Amino acid sequence: MLEVDLNCDMGESFGAYTIGADDELLREVTSANIACGLHAGDPSVMRKSVRSALAMGVSIGAHPGLPDLAGFGRRNMDISPEEAFDLVTYQIGALEAFVRQEGGKLRHVKPHGALYNMAAASCPLADAIAMAVHRFDPSLVLYGLAGSKLLAAGREAGLSTASEVFADRTYQPDGSLTPRRQPGAVITDMDQSVRQVIRMVKEGAVAAVDGTVVPLEAETVCIHGDGAGAAAFAAELRRRLKAEGIAVQAKR
Amino acid sequence: MLEVDLNCDMGESFGAYTIGADDELLREVTSANIACGLHAGDPSVMRKSVRSALAMGVSIGAHPGLPDLAGFGRRNMDISPEEAFDLVTYQIGALEAFVRQEGGKLRHVKPHGALYNMAAASCPLADAIAMAVHRFDPSLVLYGLAGSKLLAAGREAGLSTASEVFADRTYQPDGSLTPRRQPGAVITDMDQSVRQVIRMVKEGAVAAVDGTVVPLEAETVCIHGDGAGAAAFAAELRRRLKAEGIAVQAKR
Amino acid sequence: MLEVDLNCDMGESFGAYTIGADDELLREVTSANIACGLHAGDPSVMRKSVRSALAMGVSIGAHPGLPDLAGFGRRNMDISPEEAFDLVTYQIGALEAFVRQEGGKLRHVKPHGALYNMAAASCPLADAIAMAVHRFDPSLVLYGLAGSKLLAAGREAGLSTASEVFADRTYQPDGSLTPRRQPGAVITDMDQSVRQVIRMVKEGAVAAVDGTVVPLEAETVCIHGDGAGAAAFAAELRRRLKAEGIAVQAKR
Amino acid sequence: MLEVDLNCDMGESFGAYTIGADDELLREVTSANIACGLHAGDPSVMRKSVRSALAMGVSIGAHPGLPDLAGFGRRNMDISPEEAFDLVTYQIGALEAFVRQEGGKLRHVKPHGALYNMAAASCPLADAIAMAVHRFDPSLVLYGLAGSKLLAAGREAGLSTASEVFADRTYQPDGSLTPRRQPGAVITDMDQSVRQVIRMVKEGAVAAVDGTVVPLEAETVCIHGDGAGAAAFAAELRRRLKAEGIAVQAKR
Repeated sequence: MLEVDLNCDMGESFGAYTIGADDELLREVTSANIACGLHAGDPSVMRKSVRSALAMGVSIGAHPGLPDLAGFGRRNMDISPEEAFDLVTYQIGALEAFVRQEGGKLRHVKPHGALYNMAAASCPLADAIAMAVHRFDPSLVLYGLAGSKLLAAGREAGLSTASEVFADRTYQPDGSLTPRRQPGAVITDMDQSVRQVIRMVKEGAVAAVDGTVVPLEAETVCIHGDGAGAAAFAAELRRRLKAEGIAVQAKR
Repeated sequence: MLEVDLNCDMGESFGAYTIGADDELLREVTSANIACGLHAGDPSVMRKSVRSALAMGVSIGAHPGLPDLAGFGRRNMDISPEEAFDLVTYQIGALEAFVRQEGGKLRHVKPHGALYNMAAASCPLADAIAMAVHRFDPSLVLYGLAGSKLLAAGREAGLSTASEVFADRTYQPDGSLTPRRQPGAVITDMDQSVRQVIRMVKEGAVAAVDGTVVPLEAETVCIHGDGAGAAAFAAELRRRLKAEGIAVQAKR
Repeated sequence: MLEVDLNCDMGESFGAYTIGADDELLREVTSANIACGLHAGDPSVMRKSVRSALAMGVSIGAHPGLPDLAGFGRRNMDISPEEAFDLVTYQIGALEAFVRQEGGKLRHVKPHGALYNMAAASCPLADAIAMAVHRFDPSLVLYGLAGSKLLAAGREAGLSTASEVFADRTYQPDGSLTPRRQPGAVITDMDQSVRQVIRMVKEGAVAAVDGTVVPLEAETVCIHGDGAGAAAFAAELRRRLKAEGIAVQAKR
Repeated sequence: MLEVDLNCDMGESFGAYTIGADDELLREVTSANIACGLHAGDPSVMRKSVRSALAMGVSIGAHPGLPDLAGFGRRNMDISPEEAFDLVTYQIGALEAFVRQEGGKLRHVKPHGALYNMAAASCPLADAIAMAVHRFDPSLVLYGLAGSKLLAAGREAGLSTASEVFADRTYQPDGSLTPRRQPGAVITDMDQSVRQVIRMVKEGAVAAVDGTVVPLEAETVCIHGDGAGAAAFAAELRRRLKAEGIAVQAKR
């Protein structure tokens, strides 16, 4: 039976600042990527997020980012592979402490923002992240962009991996995402988004912007948490996937 | 056979900033309290410190502090017990990740600076810290000031504890340390410091500034890492303790 | 003619995090206290806030806080008077740069949160803050709690001061605010709040919780920016003040 | 008469962390670039540094950097020109407050580390920084790498500029510095360094690594503050420059 995971970034509030519709999204997704205090999140938000995810039966992952709260981890920073190794270790260790205390188990790791993007393209960064995860706990699943260096590095390191696709983004003939500043980068039609996901899951392929059919493994779909309609979209996607006979569940 | 532990704060460098004579002190102490990135330390310093301690066979503890890098964790902050619980959890989890990756085992937790002092006097903070440690790993040893609320909370929570004494500070008749701003607070004579420690270990007592003999359990001695002569003092103390037939080793 | 200023904290967003209804409030208040990047705010938020205030003709003040973004500057920290002096200098200098670049003039300084509260009660902190402001620019107006040490220190330092009152808080017979955790601390009835302000402005007095009439100078009223109805309350207060013949304008 | 300025980065200590030999260097240099609290420095260090520079008659400049204390401002970050504009404004405003309070005058601005390097090569960043400085105070002198986009942007904005050269680095035929990872990038011989500077000042040229003579304006020489022999080198350079009849003084 076909299956797919729906994941969402969570726990990105900080102190007096709240962001995201975590509680609504937890009703729809199967995996939660919880921020670890560097690009977003703080210790108390982390505990609350872990508790909510456990209460909703949602699989928990660490969502480590760059040490750039002011930029929300979205600005590329020229860190070394060693720094990446240590930053990821620090953050997954911190999150795992809350998961352990609350009686759960950490299941996966998905780097955030600029770290995710840099690791998609850079072998040394990808290797460092994959090795940090493996050395911390080889049973963790590493999430990365479909076709990325990060996924390859994860497999190389001996980790299970989850190939991530995007419902609301168009693809280039080489399998990369159309950059946001280009026209047509974002799919705003909900039905088109849903159909793109269903095709990716069923056929292992996506139609690029020029019509080329590009092979693409869709093990997990990224649900953006910051849009107003995120939970509604996730619910619709979930309903349609089930209607197609596709199980929606966390990757095991 | 009598025994005592010598502990020292470590890993308090940060980025381009270096502080402390960690390598020299690791040759003399039996337990290292490694900073966890909030009051001092950073992920790369944490890894380096963990590696050095393991290489020297020194027992590793987490040294969580207040989120106040500018104040080095020495300024009291009005945090709630819940915040203390979460801050401690975050930091011991982060450090444990490095210890685990490097093949070691986290042995103890000693709060830093203002957090240590506040937890010595406040039951709610002490309880929160003790519970955070216990819930993370009940086999950890909690270090606290001899006679403090923190030690009592640790025992109450079911943790092993290590009662900490100071070689270079004088004591008041109630067992508290003479505040630093008072004359006679600091013992500058090395021989007097050593003799104070030996008496505390052998007799379980210290002579207060007014001559009163105060009962005091000495399971671990704090070696200050920032003084120039810290390593030399630790070496001398160690030599004299052995000469008295006192084993110098980490508390198990 | 009687007059009073309505002030509101602003510019407390940070990076991807937004907080407060600044644009709505700028239509109603006469003075804006703009956060300076330590407890809240960042350089880009500061510029935007300064521009908005200037565009709306609202008088601009610096709103320096403790270096505690995670606690939003609301947690007391044990800083020295020298540290307070330097922290305030740093923040008012930073904000003044934006005001100057945008063609405006910095008019006042109001400490934030825990710094405001600590300076209300501590003479050394109050003196340090007042002197920092005076030495930066003696024409600035220092805002402080009515009856506080901060106002006294400001006058002593040679500054103009603005005595601040609260519309939605009850007062004790000694002129202090009823602590929030006590019942009856907050006035939830809009009409009662408005009448309290009008009486304070017209009679220079407030009725304490026990009925005692307490003298209290009301030069500026704090409008809390985080409540949903803040702008609506400010508009109503403004309307009623005008109806009483009280001019609503920034203190000059 | 020929003249040249000797500048040095200063005030890069932070909280409990000390770095640099500021007091010794202040005896030799003519301009001090004082860190502004983002990549290094804190408000109290800024005040102390300003006081020391004023006491020694050394011209004061702001030394704004990236918001990356952990990386000491040396890691490139993908900030937008608008962010650069605001970050620079924030930092020069903060420093100017201390200079003003201490009775001095801010004379120049030199970006730090990665910000300096990025602005040397990127027109949009260079323009943003130059405009931020000009709009803050058009009488400030902008320091930048000889031949850089930053210097060009400064002149374009209407600022005085100071073309900076390096005594201990070799040059490429195109006038750029030999990258540090290449052999021969650093000149370790003091006499060779001194002679390179003297030639640059007297002839407006430097011999590149391949012997090519490259025109290069030398208005200010960067003295690295972190080397043990920095002050000794500065003293020797100063002595030799005077012997050549070259005045050593801040650019006016």
